[in-house]
Amino acid sequence: MKLLEERIRKDGKVGEGDVLKVDSFLNHQIDVGFLCELGKEFKRLYEGENITRVLTIEASGIGIACLTAQYFGVPVVFAKKTKTNNIYADVYTSQVESYTHKTTYDIVVSKEFLSPDDRVLIIDDFLAKGSALTALISLVNAAGAEVAGCGIAVEKAYQKGGELVRSQGIRVESLARIKSMSVEGGVEFC
Amino acid sequence: MKLLEERIRKDGKVGEGDVLKVDSFLNHQIDVGFLCELGKEFKRLYEGENITRVLTIEASGIGIACLTAQYFGVPVVFAKKTKTNNIYADVYTSQVESYTHKTTYDIVVSKEFLSPDDRVLIIDDFLAKGSALTALISLVNAAGAEVAGCGIAVEKAYQKGGELVRSQGIRVESLARIKSMSVEGGVEFC
Repeated sequence: MKLLEERIRKDGKVGEGDVLKVDSFLNHQIDVGFLCELGKEFKRLYEGENITRVLTIEASGIGIACLTAQYFGVPVVFAKKTKTNNIYADVYTSQVESYTHKTTYDIVVSKEFLSPDDRVLIIDDFLAKGSALTALISLVNAAGAEVAGCGIAVEKAYQKGGELVRSQGIRVESLARIKSMSVEGGVEFC
Repeated sequence: MKLLEERIRKDGKVGEGDVLKVDSFLNHQIDVGFLCELGKEFKRLYEGENITRVLTIEASGIGIACLTAQYFGVPVVFAKKTKTNNIYADVYTSQVESYTHKTTYDIVVSKEFLSPDDRVLIIDDFLAKGSALTALISLVNAAGAEVAGCGIAVEKAYQKGGELVRSQGIRVESLARIKSMSVEGGVEFC
């Protein structure tokens, strides 16, 4: 999607350690009007797929998931990173390895909010090694629901996450796919 | 706001330990269309206030903040609960005491995203003892920006947070104000 690629070129900053900093519009400050445009694009891509729920993971997935889901007219469910006191009911659990924060953590979704009748669109801001996305897919599978597909804003296509998920026969639509990036050379798209 | 009060009566569940569980529509599953209605109400209440940014706190504030901000045509900034590897720049820091999770934690906002020119609308899903809201106000003050007001979905009016903030001369608009609640008697609004 040209719009997103141009924005990344303009406002994204490549940092040491394979970091693409897009926190001026995507995951710290949120350019809401811009994310609405991404949401409309996901709607166009998944039109007719009978999506019943959008699933994402806290925290940075929530904004783009909500702004996308409004075009589908379906609720968002966000997986939580720890089991809190506020969730009484049983939960589905899955494990995520965070390379950014160098930790492993559980994510949970209340069993109330995913059912075998659901066709789920998984939305997230980033796809790199695929640990979060794989964990979200596990939650959907645990519920007996169906993954209609994944909608990702920025995919680091030089890492293995996208390939890993697509090789399972799951549709992954990424609005910007990065072929390579470096502090000196900036970002090159696929 | 009748719409929210009715929804809380219908779908909210009062649990032990002063917990109001509204995770079927507000803070785990998000009823996006419904939250858009709350967002329009905040827009109506703060019309003409020249809001330049909406500030919230991860994670459960992000959905309602984004769906509200789209009616103001301004960006959302969400305070993060720890300083992550992805924020290079200097940050404003404030401390929150979480009664739900029985911990204290820091919240941070990059200095890039709040400036003295800003008139900030602070949005959050809950207001109880006011610790999160007070910390968000501190971040705005630290930036030399102005708090135009606060927009809260559910205020536990029998706790002191709302009074604390209003006594500082800050406008707080809560769409549902709970006078009392109990497992047996349910929720009573102000």
